[in-house]
This record gives sequence, C-alpha cells and structure tokens, in this order.
Amino acid sequence: MPQLDADRLFPLDNASRTLARDLYDSVAGLPIISPHGHTDPAWFAQNAAFPDPAALFITPDHYVFRMLFSQGVPLENLGVARRDGGPVQTNGRTIWRTFAQHYHLFRATPSQLWMDHALAEVFGVSDPLTPDTADAIYDHVAACLATPDYRPRALFDRFKIEALATTDAALDPLDHHQTIADSDWSGRVVPTYRPDAIIDPDTPEFAKNVEQLGAITGQDTQTWEGYLEAHRIRRAFFISRGATATDHGHPEPTTADLDDTAATALFDRVIVGDASPADRALFRAQMLTEMAEMSIEDGLVMQLHPGAHRNHAPHIFETFGPDKGFDIPKAVDYVAALKPLLNKHGLSPDLTLIVFTLDEATYARELAPMAGVYPALRLGPAWWFFDSPEGMRRYREATTETAGFYNTVGFNDDTRAFCSIPARHDVARRVDCAYLATLVASGRLSRVDASEVAHDLAYRLAKRAYKL
Amino acid sequence: MPQLDADRLFPLDNASRTLARDLYDSVAGLPIISPHGHTDPAWFAQNAAFPDPAALFITPDHYVFRMLFSQGVPLENLGVARRDGGPVQTNGRTIWRTFAQHYHLFRATPSQLWMDHALAEVFGVSDPLTPDTADAIYDHVAACLATPDYRPRALFDRFKIEALATTDAALDPLDHHQTIADSDWSGRVVPTYRPDAIIDPDTPEFAKNVEQLGAITGQDTQTWEGYLEAHRIRRAFFISRGATATDHGHPEPTTADLDDTAATALFDRVIVGDASPADRALFRAQMLTEMAEMSIEDGLVMQLHPGAHRNHAPHIFETFGPDKGFDIPKAVDYVAALKPLLNKHGLSPDLTLIVFTLDEATYARELAPMAGVYPALRLGPAWWFFDSPEGMRRYREATTETAGFYNTVGFNDDTRAFCSIPARHDVARRVDCAYLATLVASGRLSRVDASEVAHDLAYRLAKRAYKL
Amino acid sequence: MPQLDADRLFPLDNASRTLARDLYDSVAGLPIISPHGHTDPAWFAQNAAFPDPAALFITPDHYVFRMLFSQGVPLENLGVARRDGGPVQTNGRTIWRTFAQHYHLFRATPSQLWMDHALAEVFGVSDPLTPDTADAIYDHVAACLATPDYRPRALFDRFKIEALATTDAALDPLDHHQTIADSDWSGRVVPTYRPDAIIDPDTPEFAKNVEQLGAITGQDTQTWEGYLEAHRIRRAFFISRGATATDHGHPEPTTADLDDTAATALFDRVIVGDASPADRALFRAQMLTEMAEMSIEDGLVMQLHPGAHRNHAPHIFETFGPDKGFDIPKAVDYVAALKPLLNKHGLSPDLTLIVFTLDEATYARELAPMAGVYPALRLGPAWWFFDSPEGMRRYREATTETAGFYNTVGFNDDTRAFCSIPARHDVARRVDCAYLATLVASGRLSRVDASEVAHDLAYRLAKRAYKL
Repeated sequence: MPQLDADRLFPLDNASRTLARDLYDSVAGLPIISPHGHTDPAWFAQNAAFPDPAALFITPDHYVFRMLFSQGVPLENLGVARRDGGPVQTNGRTIWRTFAQHYHLFRATPSQLWMDHALAEVFGVSDPLTPDTADAIYDHVAACLATPDYRPRALFDRFKIEALATTDAALDPLDHHQTIADSDWSGRVVPTYRPDAIIDPDTPEFAKNVEQLGAITGQDTQTWEGYLEAHRIRRAFFISRGATATDHGHPEPTTADLDDTAATALFDRVIVGDASPADRALFRAQMLTEMAEMSIEDGLVMQLHPGAHRNHAPHIFETFGPDKGFDIPKAVDYVAALKPLLNKHGLSPDLTLIVFTLDEATYARELAPMAGVYPALRLGPAWWFFDSPEGMRRYREATTETAGFYNTVGFNDDTRAFCSIPARHDVARRVDCAYLATLVASGRLSRVDASEVAHDLAYRLAKRAYKL
Repeated sequence: MPQLDADRLFPLDNASRTLARDLYDSVAGLPIISPHGHTDPAWFAQNAAFPDPAALFITPDHYVFRMLFSQGVPLENLGVARRDGGPVQTNGRTIWRTFAQHYHLFRATPSQLWMDHALAEVFGVSDPLTPDTADAIYDHVAACLATPDYRPRALFDRFKIEALATTDAALDPLDHHQTIADSDWSGRVVPTYRPDAIIDPDTPEFAKNVEQLGAITGQDTQTWEGYLEAHRIRRAFFISRGATATDHGHPEPTTADLDDTAATALFDRVIVGDASPADRALFRAQMLTEMAEMSIEDGLVMQLHPGAHRNHAPHIFETFGPDKGFDIPKAVDYVAALKPLLNKHGLSPDLTLIVFTLDEATYARELAPMAGVYPALRLGPAWWFFDSPEGMRRYREATTETAGFYNTVGFNDDTRAFCSIPARHDVARRVDCAYLATLVASGRLSRVDASEVAHDLAYRLAKRAYKL
Repeated sequence: MPQLDADRLFPLDNASRTLARDLYDSVAGLPIISPHGHTDPAWFAQNAAFPDPAALFITPDHYVFRMLFSQGVPLENLGVARRDGGPVQTNGRTIWRTFAQHYHLFRATPSQLWMDHALAEVFGVSDPLTPDTADAIYDHVAACLATPDYRPRALFDRFKIEALATTDAALDPLDHHQTIADSDWSGRVVPTYRPDAIIDPDTPEFAKNVEQLGAITGQDTQTWEGYLEAHRIRRAFFISRGATATDHGHPEPTTADLDDTAATALFDRVIVGDASPADRALFRAQMLTEMAEMSIEDGLVMQLHPGAHRNHAPHIFETFGPDKGFDIPKAVDYVAALKPLLNKHGLSPDLTLIVFTLDEATYARELAPMAGVYPALRLGPAWWFFDSPEGMRRYREATTETAGFYNTVGFNDDTRAFCSIPARHDVARRVDCAYLATLVASGRLSRVDASEVAHDLAYRLAKRAYKL
C-alpha cells in the first residue's frame, strides 16, 4: 500500500465511502482550532530548531516509549532522562534505530497513523519506516529540522493553526506567552490555567506552592478568603495573557459544595498539613465547585480531565518521574461525583464545564444523559487512549443519540508531539465524516445537515465552546 | 433526501441491505403488541381530540424538552407546568416555533426519527420541519387533530395496535379501563400494576398511600400480613381489569429474602416511619421477592426497571416536579442484587421476571449470562436512552450470543408520546431485521431461520412473554 | 443455506471480504496450538472410543445444557448427573432428541457455529440438525465413534494439534500424562499447574488438600516456608511432565505483597481454619504474588482467570455440583487488584502473566493500558461467554489501539468439548482475519503486515507466549 491511503478511515462500502470522502474534502482544509494541548510555549517564543528526530518524535511521546517498554526495551535506551542523572542513550540515531526495529509493535495503533502521517505529510518521506530505511529517514528528517521551514513558527503556520492553547501551571509566569505576544509573529498561542499543584493537597510541595501563590498575588494564602482571592487574581492574569479556559486533572471527578464555615475549617486543616486523605480529597472536590463559581464570574471555560490512576508503577516514578506511560484509567461514577457542582451551577447559562472521561462505559450511561440536559455541561472529545479511530467512533455512537452533536465541543489534540497535530485533527475529521456518512447512508441524517455538522465538528464547535 | 428514506436503518452493503429489506417487508405490517408504556387510558376512555400539536409532541416528551433545555431554552418556554402555578408559555404555536428553531439539535437522535416518522406517516407532512415550515406544519397538524380520524381510538386502530398496556398506580381505580371495557370499541387497553408508591418508603406520602391501600382493600395494612394480603387483593383487581403484568421502578435492582420474623420487624419499623435509609432500601428489596412470590401465585408477569438516579437536579424537581429529563442512569450490579430473589424463585417455571437495564455494560457481563440459564429470567429490550438504533444494535450484539433470541421478549415502546408508537416499533423492526440480515450474510443464521426470528422479535415474543 | 457458509464471519463488503478470505486461506491450515483447555488427559492416555453422541456433545457442555435449562428443560433430561445419584436420563438418543427439539434456541450463538462445524467437518454430516434429522444424525455420529478414526488420538492428529495443554489440579499425579509420554504416540499433551484447591481457603476440604500436598512433597505444609517449598516441588514435578504454565481461577484478581512476618502470620491463621473471609481473600491475593515469584524462578507462564461469581444458584450446586452453567461474570477492578503483584514483579523480563477478563469494560479502560506498558503483562484472548464472533471482534477493537497485537497471546479454545477445538480455532482465525481485512481496507494496516499478523495471531503468538 502507499504509506497513506487517501481513503483511510472511511467506511468500506462504496456509497458511504464516496459520501465520507465528499464530506471530508469539504472540511480537510479548514484551519485547526487546538483548544487543549501540551505543546511547549517556549518553542513558539524562541522559535529554535528542534534538536533531532528522536527528540521530536520518540523521547517526549509516552504513547511511543510505553509500547517499546512493554516489549522489553529499557526507557534508558530511548533517551528518557533518569531523575538521578544516570546514563541514558543520547544518540538520536541510535534511539531512532531502536524505534524502527520495533515499529511493528505499533501496527494498527493511532501512533502509527500519526507517525506515518507526520513523516509523509510534514517531512515528505515516501518509504515506510523499517530497520532498513531508518537511517535514511533519520537523515532526511534531521536535514529538514535544520532548515527555517521546520522551525516551530513556520510549522505552526503551515499546519494552519488558527489558535492553540497550551496548558500552564497556575504559578507559571507566562513569559513565553508574553514573548509571543510581543513578537511580530501573528500566531495565536494562549495559555490555560491549570491549578492542580495549588489545589491538590496530595501534590508534592503543595504547601510551598500555596505560599508562592501568595507571594505572587500579594494575598495571604494561609486563609481561605486570601487563597480564593489569589486564585481570582491569578486567573485574571492568565486572562490578560489570552487564556480562555482552565483545566483540572484530578484523580477523580468528585465535587463538593460545603458551606463557608465547613470550607474554611477544611482549608485550615489542609493548609497546615493536618488533613486526612479523605479531607484532601474533599478539598479537591470543593475547589472544583469554587473554580466553577469563578468561571461564572470571569468567563473562563472549565475543563475536567479525571479518572487516571497516575504513576501506577512506583519504581518507574522513582527512577524517571511522572508521565512515563504508567497512568492507568479506572472506573468512575460521574452521576454522584458531579452532583454537588451541578446542583449549584449546572443550570447556569454562564458556565461551560467540559468533561472528559477515560471510562467509556460512562459515555452512554452517565455523561451523554447529563450533557443532554444540563445547560452548563458539555462533553469533551474522546481522550488519551481513546483518541483513536475506534475510540472516536465509539464516542460518537455512544453519545450522539442522547446528547446530540451540539453538546459536544469538537476535537482536542491534547498532545505534546507537535508534528502529530495535523495528523490527529486529520484522523478526527476523517472519523467524524465516516460516521456522518453512515448516518446519511442509513437514512438518519440528511446530506445537507451532514455537511453542516461536518463543519461544526471540525471547526465551529471548538471555536465556540472555548471562546477562541 | 426525502424525509423518510425507505431503506433507513438497514445495513449499508447491497446484499445485506436487500436481505434486511425482505425481512422487514415480511414483518412491517404485523399488528403492534405494546406490552409496556405510559399512554393515558383517559385518551381511549374519553376519545377526546388532542388539544394542539405542541401538547401532543413537545410538552409531554422529556426526550424533546430536555434537549432544548440543555441548550438554554427555559422549560417555561416549552409549556412545562410549574408547581407554583407560575406563568409558562401556553400558546401552542409559539412553543412549536421554538421547537422548530432548535430542531437541528436532534440531528441523528431517535427523537428526530420518531418525529419525522409521525409527521410523515401519521399526518402526511412532506416537508422537513424547519423554522420556515414550522407554521404551515403546525396548521396542518392542528387541522388534522380536529378531525375524527385523529381521535385516540381512531389512531389506535390505524396504528394496528392489537394490545396496549398502560402503567397504573396500584391505588388507581382503573375507571378509564372500565370505561373502555364497557364501551363498544374493541381496542384492547389493559392496565399494569405499578405499586412503587406503596412499596418504596422513600416515596412522598408513603404512609398515607399504605393507609389508603388498606381502605380500598379492607385490610389492616399496618400489619405485615394485612399489607401483603392487600397487595394480593389489589393485584386480583388489576387482573380483573385485564392486567397481565406488574412493573417496578426501583432505584436499584436489589432484592432480599428475609425470614418472616425479620420481614415483620422490618415492616413494623418502616410503617411507623422509623426506618433508616438502609432499612428502607431493604424493604424495597424484600418486596421485590414478595412480588415474585405473588406472581407465581397469580400469574402476573413481573417487570423490573431499575438503575436511574431520579431527579438529579433538585432545583428542577422543586420547580417542575419529577420526569423532567433529569433522571440519570448509574452503574448497577445485577449479580449480587438479583441473587436473593433468583435463589428463591429463579428456577420456577411459573415466574417470568423481565429485567431492564440502563447500564449497558451489564448486558454481556451479567444479564445475558443470567437470562441464559435462569428459567424465570427474561431480558427486556433496550430501554429509555437506549431505545435507539445504536442502543438496539448494541443490545442484540451483547446479548444474543449468550442468551439467544428466546430469552428476550420483543419490543416495548415505553412511551407517553402516542403518535411515536408506530415509529418506535418501526425502528425496532428495522434494526432487528438489519441485525438478522448481517447474521445471514456472515453465515451465522440461515435465511429460513432469520424469517422466523424476525416474526418472533416483531410480534410473537412480546405476545407470549406478556401473556397478551 | 449450506450448513457452513465458506465465507462465514468475513466482512460484508466485497473488497474486505476478498481480503479476509485471502488472509484466512493463508492461516486456515496452520497447526493448532491449544495452550489452555479442559480436555481430559485420560482420553489420550487410554484412547478409548467416546461412548455416544450425547455424551460427547451435550452432557459435558455447559454452554449447551444451560441454554436448554433456561427454557425449562430439566438438567436430568440431559443426562447431567445428580450428586445424590438420583435418576437422570441415560439414553443418549433420547437426550439427543431433546437437544434437537430445542436447537432453535442456539440460533446465532457460538454453540451453533461450533456444533454445525463439528457435525459437518468432523463427522461429514450434510443435513441441518432438526427434530426430523435428529435420529439419522445420531446414528451416523454413533457409527463414526465406533471406528478407530474417531478415537481421541486419531482425532487429535486429524485436527492438526501441535500441542495441547490440559488443566490439572496441583495434587493430580499426572499419570495420564505419563502414560501418553511413555506411549509410542507422538501427540504433545502437557499438563498445567492449577493450584486453586491448595491456595483458596474457601475451597471445600482446603485443609485436607494442604495436608495431602505435604504428604506428596515431603514438606511440612503446616508452616509457611514448608507450604511454599511444597509448591516449588510440585511445580517442578509438573514441569518434568511437560508443563509450561500455571493457571489460577480466583474469584477476584486481587493480589497482595505482604512482608514475610505478615505473610507467616496470615498463613498460620488460615491453616488452622481461623481466618476471617477477608483473611482468606488476602491469602489468595498473597499467593498470586508468590506464584509470580516462583514463575520468575522456574519459568512457568502464569495465567489468571478471575471474575466469575461461581455457583450463583445454590440449589443447582447442591443438586448437581459445580460447573453447571451458573457461573456469572461480575464487574472487576484490575487497576487496584493487580497493583501489588505488578509493583513487585511487573517490570521483570522473566515473568509472563497472562490475564483474562469476563468484564469487557476493563479491556480498553484497564487491561490494554496496563498490558501496553508492563513488560510482564499479556492479554489473554476473549474468554468464555466472549469466545464468540462479537466477543472476539470487540476484544480486538478494544485492545489493539492501546496494546497492539504483540501484547496479546493468540487464541485459547479453553474447552472440554474436544470436537469443538477445530471449530473454535477456525472461528478465531476467521474473526481475526476479518478484523485485519477491515484494517487494511480502511488504510490502517498494510497488506503485507496483515499477512504477518494473521500468522502471528493464528499460531506464533500462542507458541511463543506459552513457550510451547
């Protein structure tokens, strides 16, 4: 086969395939709205060349190194840094060869789709990646990276990104975003307020973080009122740098709605480090409701990404740190968890709460029924392990009939792998058009409506939901 | 597209599509057995004209108004009555226009399928519903409703309904059913015994209801024995009015099997209002087992519809009451929950217990394995949010391989939207025939067997399971 | 239709169907690796004729008799032995007629696929099984069974089984395996170490079993160290008889990692019968981790089959014993359950832990993410109720994108129905080839890679994972 099948991910029967292709052709060229992701703003501020193919494609991509690790390749061999500074492979070519030797592991995975798309479309590679072609492809990609056309801003423009949101710690000074804004480059890169490290008492150095929050904002963050005010000030600062959203990566989606006395007493226990595990979880839960209230005040869209058991293997965490592929989804109950927040703010026309899940059973059972009635609630797209053709298909099949299309918010690429952004949006547009085509072919949607929905899913819904 | 594609919901490849069409053609004209639903018996007793299109299609249909509410339309604007008698929109045309303006929200939902089918097939509307056509369609439907052909009995006959079961509170005098029986109209409309309000201690006015049960039956319902005997008397009354089934809408499917001493003591705590939440749940659980025992005695088929978190938004409940679209499914464990009842009565040839679920994960994991071995257990069809093309397809794919077709009971329309009844049965027949066609095309079912199964699923299974 | 459609289970559109057929043709003739199952080694040791068609196909097959029981056929009528020695049907022809009269219950079930395949391919039956053909088919099969070509060894050879693993109690003397090894027959039949009865304190006669373990091994199994050493000795004995794997059928997948003091104290409570239910569960959990450690030492592959609520109906268990179709899957949490074991041994290159599930929701959510990163973890194939076309398809769709193909281990037939072994492998090969064909047709896999993967899934992965 050619490395990229022009009709990939479309339905298999001829009539639907033609329909899907037509729909796709009408949206394939739309600009990219990337409202949630993890690219590094420094790339766009400094616009330095990416160092080498391995550093671009392998070492930072947990989808990639986790699969190789699962089949016995040590993380050190892939250049993943050790916390103790111990030796790891630093030769990009060697890492690339290891990757190519194991590339068969990625057969039929989204990683392969993204990688093939990036190599073909971004770098113009025409050969499949194999141990035999590894060196030539490495040389070609490395040569590209050394040219101005492959600097971050040039790629951003070439990818037709209309707006891109990074995810930034609440204490981040956002200097890179300021540099971008002050530059003569017109790319729109905005920050997202991610306050986990000052909200979750289980975070390492939580107390120190909250102190720092006080120092930055001039508030007494040892008091509940001062702590909340410091959040407000910090959110306003993010807004001044272009932010339109917050993001919350809590272990569970639990929310709470304590009265002021109880909340103050809870904060007092938490801030002195005297809180039980249940107290710490309750504090996180209460803060989601506080964040919702602040969102109603300042207009930031609220995102909730819960349900991962982080750092499942302690040895890996101790040796290499977080985000090393050992975050494992777990079953979640959104019906009880979101109730306190929704009971307080779920009917508000001024809140947009976008919820994501790693527990697909909750789509049809809980999230679509809730998003299909609560005005404040919207469904985030298929996330993480489910940002894949089958995952996206199941997402649409599980949510559309109950929540419709208009309680969803388009696509998030959610990636730190910059060159995969066009690939990921392309996959999403193809899968959505394939789904729409089957609806048309089975008499569940008119051809005219399908065109409009295709455009909505590819572009307009994300722009509207995230206020971008 | 034409408003209704003649091949809608059939498979996409030509061979299976042809097979599905043939199977469908053989069952499309069969009479409708509607063994579980929520139409109002007063309609058929009084045979009055329906007031206007909005009152027929929008105000009573929680699928419709919940979707509009999720996108910011106040329930008042849709004519939904407030408990405090506060002002709501009463102009049917205005409500209809609001609906038409938001009709795009229903793209690819079952509501759209049902609505389009009812407008086209019941009212002969040929234009799609849009803001531009809203007034003309309203006028046309209103004009129809004013004619004798659109009175409830005429529609019932035109829909080819052979039997229809309503759902009726245990304390209901069933006067409408008596009126129907006494009339010269031959339509079969039977009641269903729904005793939730006299079984669930969490029901508002539970104590008063049980007192009233005593008054109606001449039993001392302040004693366990008298209370049980009152149920028996009341069930016999329902049977005398044509009932063949009971229905139980418990929050959870939990059952219990207490000995008489424990049951009596539990009842005594419950009846004086002195029961803990756990006691109240245990009482509901025990009563399911008691109902099963009475079903063995009197032959009523038992239906269990558990697993909804009712009235999730207290503000909506306080303002508008129950059944306003805020009932949200939750995860359920049937394996433990049903065990006490099944251990006592599950092997009985004289019990038919039809179980429904809102937690699709339980179909393949729990319910199909249990229905595939317990003689008393049958699987109800895809329910509520899952009464949809994808929901029905997943239901068959998840249950058939383990429970077969003959431990299922055909289709329930389960609706209070009278004009959607033919549409819903049509969707079910199409989806089932599509499923059967793919089985034939993939060599898993013979063509001859598929014909017989199509007829079973469309008609015979419901008639047999519900003794109609 | 012909009884077996040559293209059964292939995709429906022409292009994918052709691709699937080509892939299937390339693997259909490969030898069978059967690394996990429940055939009786005595069959191959003694090579006696199977008694009659009912004893071969019906009485031992819980898929078959549970379905008939669910529709009112008493187990006694199917020849299932009662514990009290009470009368049951013993006439094979009568049992066969009962089966044939109810064969429509199996429409579209895997049992029908297997039965039709076995009758057609193993016995050369060309008519469909119906009440009318029942006697003739019975006579034909019975006549076959009386011939040398239908003795167990002849069938084994004819089925092209390269290796077959039985499942054997840890206390089993493995005499039959010895007999096979000593014979002049070259068939490879190896045992599997299944120690549930000496590990699970909830097993009837647990204490007696552990005493017997001591007697067999010459260890003091009343001490923790002696008990562990006895396991090591017994495992070595199984290895000497050809075993390459262990198997663990725990009610839940919970593991534990106690320190030696705590483990010793726990054992001491368990062995004197003084352990609480929680203690007994903890002991099972701890023993899984001990088994993993021994597997690292001796190289036995470890299999875990958890999550069934065994013997759900006490009356059936009391009357007929275990394995009578009343084992019901339940929801399971693998993320927490496996963590202690994985934290201790999950990164070891010397452990292969193959996990199975009856809770399909865990595939995409938990097991594929874990198998996609832990080097020691592999996913077992779709199991039990999910060893079916839809179950296998869902398995691939749920796991491939996250875990790839190479963290799975090929197919297990897991059966005690000997004549269904070729049918089950055939179904698996067809479903996998159908899945691969759709990947190729939708541009997600190259044609060349699909060929290699087809061969891997049909043969090489099982051989490698199980060291056969």
